[in-house]
Amino acid sequence: MRTHVLAFAAALVLAAPALAAEPADTAAALRDRALTDATAWTVVEDLTTTVGPRLVGSPGMARARDWAVKTFTDLGFTNIKVEEFAKASWTRGPESAAITGPYPFPLSILGLGRSVPTAAKGLEAEVVVFNSYAALLAAPAGSLTGKIAVVNQPMTRTQDGQGYGAAGLVRRSGASEAARRGAVAFLMRSVSTSDSRLAHTGVLSYAADAPKIPAAALGVPDADLIEQLAKRGPVRIKLSLASTTNPKGVAWNISGDIAGSAAPEEVIVIGGHLDSWDPGTGAIDDAAGVAITTAAAKLIGDLPKHPRRTIRVVMWGSEESGGSSEAYAAARKDELADFIVASESDLGADRIYALMLPKDAMKQPALADLPTVLAPLKIFIARDPAPFGGSDVEGLAAAGVPVFSLRQDASRYFDLHHSADDTLDKIDPAQLNQNVAAWAALLYMIADSDIDFRPKAAQ
Amino acid sequence: MRTHVLAFAAALVLAAPALAAEPADTAAALRDRALTDATAWTVVEDLTTTVGPRLVGSPGMARARDWAVKTFTDLGFTNIKVEEFAKASWTRGPESAAITGPYPFPLSILGLGRSVPTAAKGLEAEVVVFNSYAALLAAPAGSLTGKIAVVNQPMTRTQDGQGYGAAGLVRRSGASEAARRGAVAFLMRSVSTSDSRLAHTGVLSYAADAPKIPAAALGVPDADLIEQLAKRGPVRIKLSLASTTNPKGVAWNISGDIAGSAAPEEVIVIGGHLDSWDPGTGAIDDAAGVAITTAAAKLIGDLPKHPRRTIRVVMWGSEESGGSSEAYAAARKDELADFIVASESDLGADRIYALMLPKDAMKQPALADLPTVLAPLKIFIARDPAPFGGSDVEGLAAAGVPVFSLRQDASRYFDLHHSADDTLDKIDPAQLNQNVAAWAALLYMIADSDIDFRPKAAQ
Repeated sequence: MRTHVLAFAAALVLAAPALAAEPADTAAALRDRALTDATAWTVVEDLTTTVGPRLVGSPGMARARDWAVKTFTDLGFTNIKVEEFAKASWTRGPESAAITGPYPFPLSILGLGRSVPTAAKGLEAEVVVFNSYAALLAAPAGSLTGKIAVVNQPMTRTQDGQGYGAAGLVRRSGASEAARRGAVAFLMRSVSTSDSRLAHTGVLSYAADAPKIPAAALGVPDADLIEQLAKRGPVRIKLSLASTTNPKGVAWNISGDIAGSAAPEEVIVIGGHLDSWDPGTGAIDDAAGVAITTAAAKLIGDLPKHPRRTIRVVMWGSEESGGSSEAYAAARKDELADFIVASESDLGADRIYALMLPKDAMKQPALADLPTVLAPLKIFIARDPAPFGGSDVEGLAAAGVPVFSLRQDASRYFDLHHSADDTLDKIDPAQLNQNVAAWAALLYMIADSDIDFRPKAAQ
Repeated sequence: MRTHVLAFAAALVLAAPALAAEPADTAAALRDRALTDATAWTVVEDLTTTVGPRLVGSPGMARARDWAVKTFTDLGFTNIKVEEFAKASWTRGPESAAITGPYPFPLSILGLGRSVPTAAKGLEAEVVVFNSYAALLAAPAGSLTGKIAVVNQPMTRTQDGQGYGAAGLVRRSGASEAARRGAVAFLMRSVSTSDSRLAHTGVLSYAADAPKIPAAALGVPDADLIEQLAKRGPVRIKLSLASTTNPKGVAWNISGDIAGSAAPEEVIVIGGHLDSWDPGTGAIDDAAGVAITTAAAKLIGDLPKHPRRTIRVVMWGSEESGGSSEAYAAARKDELADFIVASESDLGADRIYALMLPKDAMKQPALADLPTVLAPLKIFIARDPAPFGGSDVEGLAAAGVPVFSLRQDASRYFDLHHSADDTLDKIDPAQLNQNVAAWAALLYMIADSDIDFRPKAAQ
């Protein structure tokens, strides 16, 4: 399939377009061209292969910054900027865990991001297993004194990814809740819909009023085994986690523009995040989003005449650890009124099935043909407005910039997310290009319009 | 689903049967009872949970031997035997591999069984990548001097598991072929149909006339990454493998009988293997086969009247490293003429779709109703005779014992086989019991007959 896409693309990508004058016709032509365009695959393959993992503060993230500048340059973007901001970093060290009784068994784990380390010699204790987070929260104070708390709450597979909400809460807050009850360490079933032994990491957030205890995610079958053994008798686990932090670290947002032809000061901000967790190569999270939005903008940039407004792709420098878009918004308070709309691509590379726009957007005449343009891609326009533009653009949304959301099918996203299995081979080139097609068509229609998505004052 | 099966089973498993006299009617009743019987799930859960991994020579294998005796006893088997035989063992030590250039990247690997270790400090060299085993074989002598050979040959997914033949050859012989051409180490894409980072181990076999070099399997995405990087420039890898061997080791075959009521000296030998690879808990390979055959025999043993012949379940002690059934056959040369037929269950726990019998078996009047008995399970009787009864009974087949084969759907078996992902959660209780149903029905019809499967002398 990879060969197929590239072969088509070689013939088509540089062909001059023969387009009708109407924005919807141009959007439809962009859509069709995107389906066989090689750019997104080339970008995602190059980033995951030549740069690899890109945790904030790592040498990989510095390579990624340079890669981003080169990629924007090579693809014809202008106004390329590298904007540094302060971001404390956390670096994983050697990690191990094993059941030590009733019999020795090595466990598959990943320390949670920002976890404190154990003492160098590790710690060993008996476990208390909870099959839900609610069960942990119901445990009385002091009931876990000297114990390792294990929460084995499964995650629900959903198309829109909303199962992440409940499961992610365990990861963020579980360690402090266990510590409040006396636990010396916190282990959790990975936030995962797969049945792989590979654990899934992600950040935790220590509460200010609880001891900071080491915390790690278990492979799903590992968590099940511990629960089944604990039903039969005492289970002891030894845990060793090493990590270092750099409170003086920095990160970078890198952006490039397809300059507007008539109103270049009006900016549509899109992008994905460049940083990634360390165990995999950050392919679905989020080299894919970087590639999809970059390729869509680049296709528009190749048109003989750019649309009215500027399309800006931002490769965000710290989504996994937070703070990118807040830093970005803070640095350009005076320009935010000209930011027309913002959105991210950050839920993998599987096909888009719905578009959520700002409230009342479909009343705009300029978008009248949008359903027709998106229909061949099997994308409907949701009746509800976009509740969230994505974590990459939270700082912009908080500053009042309207957001839209192209909803990707996340059914298999959390099989891979934040694990060593987040690698290039998980990306389906055909679905990747369906994403590019949707982004290119939608972006063009917004960029070549004068739509104002901001709510009007009551008349 | 687990709960459902157990709930039904509690009500049904000990109920006295009300059966018609015909063997086919009894077989059909056994089949139906098996579908809601809890025995197979209980056995596979208990073995994988309380014993864990069971590599030959490990403490786990000794625990498994004791577990087997207790399980046979608890389930009412008689003539329980533990037969020791000599078997050299191999024990994995700490292992690691990483790309060191063009940038550092930790690789997911598993040393191949029986691989020699590296020096304690490891070895580091540039790689030469072959995208097929044929390409390695085509490389001239001396062309790999000082290099690490990497073979990235994908495995084909098939229903009957035949893709294992071609892929398994790389694992068994690749190290020696690379060594003959000067390589200092051998890395291969795991023998796997999955796209997981988790590597798949298995034995290699060093040729007598080639240097013994360290050999390991790579996670599938790891192998792909190395190949993609090598297209861009030199790639260096550091490899450390530790292992120890015990040439004086022993293993055990453990057997239990459901004694025949009329011709107890006539024996049908079935079973699965108790030993397993070390990274997982050996659920599909082959606690499942142990559980399926044990549960089928136990259901027959619960009948008010046993069938004519003896059904013997053997839990083989060394399938992964070979030698179990050869030792077994050698120890009872004088009894082999009374071994009616032999077979194994050793391709996971997914549903059976076909039965292959010895040549001309379906001409036997006693099997006339067999297609009708198996049809509700969606199992057909293949026109071709069984070419192979399975690696667990190779020693018996070589000694002239006829074999049959209940063919399991192996479509997903090699996603998990020999990897850390071979765990209990991969077993579907409903499919497991479809296996038990087929085995119980077939075994009863053979055991309550006087069929002779051996070829007749020409008349």
